[in-house]
Amino acid sequence: MQRADLTEKLLDIKREKGWSWAHICQTIGGSSPVLVTAAILGQMKLTKPQVAEAVRLFGLSEAEGRLLNEAPYRGSCPMPPTDPLVYRFYELVMVYGTTWKELIQEEFGDGIMSAIDFDFELEREPDPKGDRVKITMSGKFLPYKYYGATGNNPTLGYKEE
Amino acid sequence: MQRADLTEKLLDIKREKGWSWAHICQTIGGSSPVLVTAAILGQMKLTKPQVAEAVRLFGLSEAEGRLLNEAPYRGSCPMPPTDPLVYRFYELVMVYGTTWKELIQEEFGDGIMSAIDFDFELEREPDPKGDRVKITMSGKFLPYKYYGATGNNPTLGYKEE
Amino acid sequence: MQRADLTEKLLDIKREKGWSWAHICQTIGGSSPVLVTAAILGQMKLTKPQVAEAVRLFGLSEAEGRLLNEAPYRGSCPMPPTDPLVYRFYELVMVYGTTWKELIQEEFGDGIMSAIDFDFELEREPDPKGDRVKITMSGKFLPYKYYGATGNNPTLGYKEE
Amino acid sequence: MQRADLTEKLLDIKREKGWSWAHICQTIGGSSPVLVTAAILGQMKLTKPQVAEAVRLFGLSEAEGRLLNEAPYRGSCPMPPTDPLVYRFYELVMVYGTTWKELIQEEFGDGIMSAIDFDFELEREPDPKGDRVKITMSGKFLPYKYYGATGNNPTLGYKEE
Amino acid sequence: MQRADLTEKLLDIKREKGWSWAHICQTIGGSSPVLVTAAILGQMKLTKPQVAEAVRLFGLSEAEGRLLNEAPYRGSCPMPPTDPLVYRFYELVMVYGTTWKELIQEEFGDGIMSAIDFDFELEREPDPKGDRVKITMSGKFLPYKYYGATGNNPTLGYKEE
Amino acid sequence: MQRADLTEKLLDIKREKGWSWAHICQTIGGSSPVLVTAAILGQMKLTKPQVAEAVRLFGLSEAEGRLLNEAPYRGSCPMPPTDPLVYRFYELVMVYGTTWKELIQEEFGDGIMSAIDFDFELEREPDPKGDRVKITMSGKFLPYKYYGATGNNPTLGYKEE
Amino acid sequence: MQRADLTEKLLDIKREKGWSWAHICQTIGGSSPVLVTAAILGQMKLTKPQVAEAVRLFGLSEAEGRLLNEAPYRGSCPMPPTDPLVYRFYELVMVYGTTWKELIQEEFGDGIMSAIDFDFELEREPDPKGDRVKITMSGKFLPYKYYGATGNNPTLGYKEE
Amino acid sequence: MQRADLTEKLLDIKREKGWSWAHICQTIGGSSPVLVTAAILGQMKLTKPQVAEAVRLFGLSEAEGRLLNEAPYRGSCPMPPTDPLVYRFYELVMVYGTTWKELIQEEFGDGIMSAIDFDFELEREPDPKGDRVKITMSGKFLPYKYYGATGNNPTLGYKEE
Amino acid sequence: MQRADLTEKLLDIKREKGWSWAHICQTIGGSSPVLVTAAILGQMKLTKPQVAEAVRLFGLSEAEGRLLNEAPYRGSCPMPPTDPLVYRFYELVMVYGTTWKELIQEEFGDGIMSAIDFDFELEREPDPKGDRVKITMSGKFLPYKYYGATGNNPTLGYKEE
Amino acid sequence: MQRADLTEKLLDIKREKGWSWAHICQTIGGSSPVLVTAAILGQMKLTKPQVAEAVRLFGLSEAEGRLLNEAPYRGSCPMPPTDPLVYRFYELVMVYGTTWKELIQEEFGDGIMSAIDFDFELEREPDPKGDRVKITMSGKFLPYKYYGATGNNPTLGYKEE
Repeated sequence: MQRADLTEKLLDIKREKGWSWAHICQTIGGSSPVLVTAAILGQMKLTKPQVAEAVRLFGLSEAEGRLLNEAPYRGSCPMPPTDPLVYRFYELVMVYGTTWKELIQEEFGDGIMSAIDFDFELEREPDPKGDRVKITMSGKFLPYKYYGATGNNPTLGYKEE
Repeated sequence: MQRADLTEKLLDIKREKGWSWAHICQTIGGSSPVLVTAAILGQMKLTKPQVAEAVRLFGLSEAEGRLLNEAPYRGSCPMPPTDPLVYRFYELVMVYGTTWKELIQEEFGDGIMSAIDFDFELEREPDPKGDRVKITMSGKFLPYKYYGATGNNPTLGYKEE
Repeated sequence: MQRADLTEKLLDIKREKGWSWAHICQTIGGSSPVLVTAAILGQMKLTKPQVAEAVRLFGLSEAEGRLLNEAPYRGSCPMPPTDPLVYRFYELVMVYGTTWKELIQEEFGDGIMSAIDFDFELEREPDPKGDRVKITMSGKFLPYKYYGATGNNPTLGYKEE
Repeated sequence: MQRADLTEKLLDIKREKGWSWAHICQTIGGSSPVLVTAAILGQMKLTKPQVAEAVRLFGLSEAEGRLLNEAPYRGSCPMPPTDPLVYRFYELVMVYGTTWKELIQEEFGDGIMSAIDFDFELEREPDPKGDRVKITMSGKFLPYKYYGATGNNPTLGYKEE
Repeated sequence: MQRADLTEKLLDIKREKGWSWAHICQTIGGSSPVLVTAAILGQMKLTKPQVAEAVRLFGLSEAEGRLLNEAPYRGSCPMPPTDPLVYRFYELVMVYGTTWKELIQEEFGDGIMSAIDFDFELEREPDPKGDRVKITMSGKFLPYKYYGATGNNPTLGYKEE
Repeated sequence: MQRADLTEKLLDIKREKGWSWAHICQTIGGSSPVLVTAAILGQMKLTKPQVAEAVRLFGLSEAEGRLLNEAPYRGSCPMPPTDPLVYRFYELVMVYGTTWKELIQEEFGDGIMSAIDFDFELEREPDPKGDRVKITMSGKFLPYKYYGATGNNPTLGYKEE
Repeated sequence: MQRADLTEKLLDIKREKGWSWAHICQTIGGSSPVLVTAAILGQMKLTKPQVAEAVRLFGLSEAEGRLLNEAPYRGSCPMPPTDPLVYRFYELVMVYGTTWKELIQEEFGDGIMSAIDFDFELEREPDPKGDRVKITMSGKFLPYKYYGATGNNPTLGYKEE
Repeated sequence: MQRADLTEKLLDIKREKGWSWAHICQTIGGSSPVLVTAAILGQMKLTKPQVAEAVRLFGLSEAEGRLLNEAPYRGSCPMPPTDPLVYRFYELVMVYGTTWKELIQEEFGDGIMSAIDFDFELEREPDPKGDRVKITMSGKFLPYKYYGATGNNPTLGYKEE
Repeated sequence: MQRADLTEKLLDIKREKGWSWAHICQTIGGSSPVLVTAAILGQMKLTKPQVAEAVRLFGLSEAEGRLLNEAPYRGSCPMPPTDPLVYRFYELVMVYGTTWKELIQEEFGDGIMSAIDFDFELEREPDPKGDRVKITMSGKFLPYKYYGATGNNPTLGYKEE
Repeated sequence: MQRADLTEKLLDIKREKGWSWAHICQTIGGSSPVLVTAAILGQMKLTKPQVAEAVRLFGLSEAEGRLLNEAPYRGSCPMPPTDPLVYRFYELVMVYGTTWKELIQEEFGDGIMSAIDFDFELEREPDPKGDRVKITMSGKFLPYKYYGATGNNPTLGYKEE
């Protein structure tokens, strides 16, 4: 059983039952809707208590539940994305990538924003000219470590750069 | 004169003068630091009043100023990005792309978040476990229009979907 | 059930019944033939009233109808297109892309023509030297917004560029 | 001398003089603005009378004029386009390509819309909700020829398909 | 039913019956062997009278016959071709492409050789040093049209270039 | 000195002098126009007597002449070709590649048409509906050799297949 | 039936029976082990007498035997090869490709080593520091032919280059 | 000034002076040889005290020193790497990637090994059968965070998975 | 039977039984866990004694066991890897590839670290700031051999470089 | 100074002097012509005694000589190769890759033929039907090592597989 087959099965059940993502995420609970939806789509794992809820909701076998508890081989779509909604995010990276790099590094020093210790929220922002999609992301800044020649002892802290 | 050559010249001056992006953006003013930085990096245009400030700050010729007022052929980096900081954003699109699609479309209907009518803010979020990069994005939702057979008259509104 | 499987089923029924696209689009109604055809081919959604007609016409299950009401993951063909008819449009973009950019931006300023708020009509143009394919497209112009540092308040209007 | 170098020179002069495309196209004349602009950008040739005007306007050498009269090796931008304005056209091909194929072939039979015997017009369409880019394209329909076994004598006309 | 599945079925029957392409093309008739073979391989359509012969020869269903009458989504092999015979043609394009462009354009002006209004013949050319494959191709020359600003009226003929 | 630089120099001279390919090929002589043009474009070598003529015609240095006598690293254009004239040949390979394979192999057995022992002629074919580009190619058929286990002694001839 | 399916079937039988390639090649006979193995793997054809042996050995149907007698669409693995053993050969081409070109052309003139009229032998070369894989390849040299303007009559022989 | 130009200059000086990497890394000091070498090659930054040493050693201008203190746009070689030494590491990722994923995730849970908080040591391991390259890498394990619906408060710890 | 199908079957059994990799590797034994895991994932072979254990543990057929004893066509994941854990290793190669090349070659001379005679160990390194993944790799250094013109006799040893 | 620039300089001198590769390789001596030619083309290093000869022959500076003594970043041509002579080798890998894998592994076990400890000879093989290019390659077989769980101690020898 491939994770992709399980994803297709879960989407079939969602469609047949007429469930919304809100309903599924509320029932499974335990983490943000983004993470639960991503897990159903095969991109994140569900924790064990979440799996128990998912098994009950979707009527899954024990093996299917265990598959939902595994860290999947991630990658949800072809790149560049062919779907316009997903592509717009890709375009933002292509156009603003070097800008974000300059500004984050001026503020934080040499390093990256983590895509792992990362949180994401999605809201509707009412606007008379047309409602807006508001996205709030927060990722831990991870500085490049400048380890010394003797191994793991960082001999130069970030301040000294 | 290619825009890329002008970008290289501006970065050389920035380095020689020891200016920060904050200094450049404050001096040029008129829009958010993300937009001003992106323009210096060759991804956005500066408006005419901004160009006047940039010409003064960097000591540019009139033709160089006009080039900064042109909408550039956008695309700031190779894709997939080879730089780790930029790549993490690319990875977020690859992993969460289908999730964002599902949740945005459940909330707003069939359409996209605009990457054109789009605002972006970057902040430092202090955190005892390590400061975080906080990003707030807001893009207008643009619904797919279901035009009728007689031309531009939308015969089916979004509500009726 | 994947959308591609449903598309194949619908095309099989169309072929067996000997229906034309004109017949299908007229029966389903509610939007232009381009949009209805695109939905049958898995690139657009049908609205609920359209789904009801499609279910009746093709004899579909309720779940199949719901799938037609979902916004699909778009992308109808490999790129570059291998089919000559589709490739000619790709070639037009490759050859005239920068020309369209220059002329649209000279007329409208920095921004894009929307591919979402977009209408498309196709006509036969009789011509003694050989009939012509006439295509009329109309997409809303979306200007890049130059938001200020304080957030969503556009401090610089398009006129001032 | 490469055509790309000449293009860069012409754009430099345009910028220094502060000319619009409208001014350049009107001065050179002889064909539609799309074709003149495309020629300046290195994608089309200018005819000899047009070259004479261009040489006068831009102050070119005779060899530069002759280069403008040569059919260039076409291809104006990388594919997929990285610029958002150009990408939206690419996206239209990717999303609607198979739809256009179905509808054009139902109307005209097996063949293509020519990208060579092709005309293109661009207009501003005023709209209270935001002006629109109106594009009218007209390309000759070229039917696949079903030549017989004896050589060039088409034994089966389009009607008989 | 996908066209590729039908192609596989037809090749299975051809193999089981031990038929040659010559036999199939002669039986179906109506156009050149290249076109009939291409249709069996899923790259061209058969006209209605040809379909009738093909249905009889291969024992096909009515729906399969109709599929053979549809214009397929063309593209017969991966590019670059991995098969040596097909690759040699690809190599000819790669090596001689710019040469053909120069010579065709010197003779005919700016335009292309049509790949749609196109005929192809294949012969064995006996040669004591080893027989040769003789290929004769004939494609209509299509000149780029230099339409004027007022629309479809060509204001500049080919002669005046 | 790269061959590409020499090619650019030769094309500059051709343009300044206003020479046609016909003039250049006639002056250099010794092989078909296709081969001479290909050599000027950096895809073939000129033989020593041809080099002598080319040196005289273009006023080249001895080293430049020797470069023209070297077998170049071939490959005249990016693939897929972005230029429409060259692309049409590429398209023919993509659409008809498997057809040509089937028909050549039915006639000649397992093998290829040589792209090395290969001749190419280009003619204008007058036609009231529009002149045609007539291309005649002739390549030696090279059968796959089925060498025996004892080394180079072919134990199975082509006839026995 | 696709050739790839037949290949998989033959490998399954080989595994179940515990046969070596040596056993299979000896039983089928008639050409070198490289050619017989390549045919079983779907890259070469077997001649008719070889097919008879293969049908007996593997217990194949008549249609399966005929498929083995067809020239396959060649291409045995993705490129670049992901398997280390196959990749090393690819690496040799990448590193030494231009060297081989220089040396072969200095010795033989402008042309290629045929990959069609080609023989290949593989031996174990005992060596106290570790046995070696010894490969002997022999391909016919094919000179580029410099055909004259009058057609197929080569007016310049290789000696005169 | 591009970082790549500075890298070339530094390598030229290294070659002219006949310096080893060991000499350069010892002189610049402050972090491990891997990091100093990577900085000279344009992949890492040098800290300010290191820059002072590098400026003295190589005789650089102040602006060149500042460039060495900037976080570069990383990416040292084309991918897949064409150089055999670098390719072997790429191959290890391709062959063992999924294995490492399984074993790291079984030991640590869902997450990654950081490539940012990362240390690397290289040693010669004497071996009578041929010395070995010993590499020790140590990267911080970063668990995927399962943030709750209320924002940044992690409601599910790693242990509870 | 494809190796990928067997891999999927083995992972299904592992999931149903709730086995860990540690349990599987301990049961099969005979080589390091990395090698056993890689074999189960289709990237290495199991030796015959290991196959016997695997057949017993997983309840496999004799043919399935033999398949596990075959050297697979290696390549475990798409490149670039879409999964973040695997990608981090790819990133290390992209960023540090040229650095490793310089340092390994300064220490060992011209050659590579073998990816075949290669050992890999994975450990948890406890760290109060967050445990670390410690990886120890050891690959035999393979010097490029500078063979003389008379064949396999190396006339220049490594020392003499 | 880039290695590619030095390569171009060396080829310019070779052309101006009218030297053959045979002359260059004989003068530099010390290893096989393949290795010397590859070094001149920027793919191998010359040893110090060879560098001394090369410096004398080509009249190089000391720094240029040192560059010839450096192990280059290898990769001599784009892949797939666009030049027909080089492509034929690529084609051999693509067509016979899996065959070589099967036969080498049946004879030697799981492992590879080294592309590093590798020798290559090129000869003309006279043949009345056309001379042949004879290539003899010999690479050390490198078996995959099956290291045990305790580290570098190989607990399973190759014989026991």
